[in-house]
Amino acid sequence: MNWYLQSGTDSDVVCSTRIRFARNLKEFSFKLQNREEVEKLENKIQEEMMNIGYGLKFLKLSNIDEITKISLVEKNIISPECALNQKQLCDILINDEENICIMINEEDHFRIQVFNSGLELENTFNLAKELEEKLDNIFHFAKNKKYGYLTACPTNVGTGMRASVMVHLPALSKTSNIQKILEVINSFGMEIRGIYGENSQASGDMYQISNKHTLGITEEEIIKNLKVITKKIVEQEREARKYLAKNSIDLEDEVYRDFGILSNCRKISSKETRKLLSNVKMGTDLGIIRELTDLQVSKIYLYTKTANLQKYCKQTLDKSQLDIKRAEVIREIINNK
Amino acid sequence: MNWYLQSGTDSDVVCSTRIRFARNLKEFSFKLQNREEVEKLENKIQEEMMNIGYGLKFLKLSNIDEITKISLVEKNIISPECALNQKQLCDILINDEENICIMINEEDHFRIQVFNSGLELENTFNLAKELEEKLDNIFHFAKNKKYGYLTACPTNVGTGMRASVMVHLPALSKTSNIQKILEVINSFGMEIRGIYGENSQASGDMYQISNKHTLGITEEEIIKNLKVITKKIVEQEREARKYLAKNSIDLEDEVYRDFGILSNCRKISSKETRKLLSNVKMGTDLGIIRELTDLQVSKIYLYTKTANLQKYCKQTLDKSQLDIKRAEVIREIINNK
Repeated sequence: MNWYLQSGTDSDVVCSTRIRFARNLKEFSFKLQNREEVEKLENKIQEEMMNIGYGLKFLKLSNIDEITKISLVEKNIISPECALNQKQLCDILINDEENICIMINEEDHFRIQVFNSGLELENTFNLAKELEEKLDNIFHFAKNKKYGYLTACPTNVGTGMRASVMVHLPALSKTSNIQKILEVINSFGMEIRGIYGENSQASGDMYQISNKHTLGITEEEIIKNLKVITKKIVEQEREARKYLAKNSIDLEDEVYRDFGILSNCRKISSKETRKLLSNVKMGTDLGIIRELTDLQVSKIYLYTKTANLQKYCKQTLDKSQLDIKRAEVIREIINNK
Repeated sequence: MNWYLQSGTDSDVVCSTRIRFARNLKEFSFKLQNREEVEKLENKIQEEMMNIGYGLKFLKLSNIDEITKISLVEKNIISPECALNQKQLCDILINDEENICIMINEEDHFRIQVFNSGLELENTFNLAKELEEKLDNIFHFAKNKKYGYLTACPTNVGTGMRASVMVHLPALSKTSNIQKILEVINSFGMEIRGIYGENSQASGDMYQISNKHTLGITEEEIIKNLKVITKKIVEQEREARKYLAKNSIDLEDEVYRDFGILSNCRKISSKETRKLLSNVKMGTDLGIIRELTDLQVSKIYLYTKTANLQKYCKQTLDKSQLDIKRAEVIREIINNK
């Protein structure tokens, strides 16, 4: 089963962990802008495929259909910039489990990414670091003694590492404590944002927390700080849930009404699904809703996203069909334990 | 099974039929105002119980607990005025099936009522008439050659008869055709009102249609006219439902969302129940919702009414308990086919 359908440590609050390294090859200029240069990089990678290992396969995004590309964006495995690159100069190296995905020629030559479900910072970091070192030996990344790894955008210079966790904070949102959390996170050198890109409002109470700085701080310190702050948020979210659950009938009523709509509606938008699912996930995590397993919740999260829905149904659907099919798939997942 | 839980003719639209005769005894003055006079009437009735028959039992409302009285009001078997009479001067004659109920000393000495499920005007009238004639032989009702039966309020003089049907008009309400219907009904000498008393807005799209006039028109004409107009409304409501069902996914989605909330909520007011149930009943009548039988819908209608809910649970409940228990009873009825 793919990592994004699994439950992990503290996964009542932490959905997933990601470690990302931005790396560039010495022998190429930053940000390859034309097909000729990109082909040189592609050839070099393809020559080294046997040495890379990890079950990674090289995929040219220009050869992949739109829905598959967007389904990867919806899983947060590749960036929208990578998928929607007009010149189609991006590629990926990905394994079957999809817990390793290297974006090629996105902003940097390599964006090495490793994913895990739940809060799993050390293990994810260790695998990402091991992979990064192996790739460094093969491709020779651009590095400066004073600054560390060099990147296309100066904000990534140094470790070139971004460690992030995706957290579900419905109770902190409901109790209006989210603003306080934002301030604390900032003071720890971390930033938090809603799941659909920067500055967007959190959709379905999902937030991504990641380190702000890559320079003047070691990788280990980043991991340690993010773990401390995440543990703190997990604790506070659980406290807030406990507080809500005190008035248990109100919370029970709220989450079950949303479950009732989700499991009975005949058409539903992606936005409404995320809104209802936020309460339903919290209800399931708190043991209030006993009709659903964690796996079913994860499946609904994934397969109601527009492109993944079409992958699941093996059909291309227009807007009105999408909303009807989404409701059908939700019922199918709920009724098949 | 009591009549109000059964389905009858055209019961996708017509919930019930009622015939009511207002009658007064010659030997008593209209509107008995003190205990002494009422006792004389009560004694007379009790002396004649053997002759009345029909399985009728004499019940002093002053001996009945509040919840039982209100449960009869909620079933529309006795009037709120009868149940809430401050001086407790009202009584009833009622049979076990509760399809015959005579209110004693409400506005008139006798309010003879016969009920049926569905559209059943002739049969209901025949039984009511038979009973009225029998009672006339025993009690000798006040009658005037020119005007007919005499009543406390002049609006009932003549036949003293009120024939009424309870109709469920969700589609005509949704398609905003209800105003036109109101006008047509008026021009036929009929009046229509929401179920909770005159001038009230229709609750859960339930309306009562009855004859406006009791003078200058025969009983048979009243029955015939009410039948014609009711048949017409049934037809129009069905047309409106067909129209809504054309855009079938929208209607399906709407009724199933309401079904989802109704069957999953953990607390619910009586008002919200009626609102949701209106769509759910229509969905069931149209064959869209297959999870519910007519009997289950009827049970939910009845046992979610505040006093009947407490009768059903055999418990006295306060406001907050009521809403929680109501949701419980709904789930109980839905899960026990």
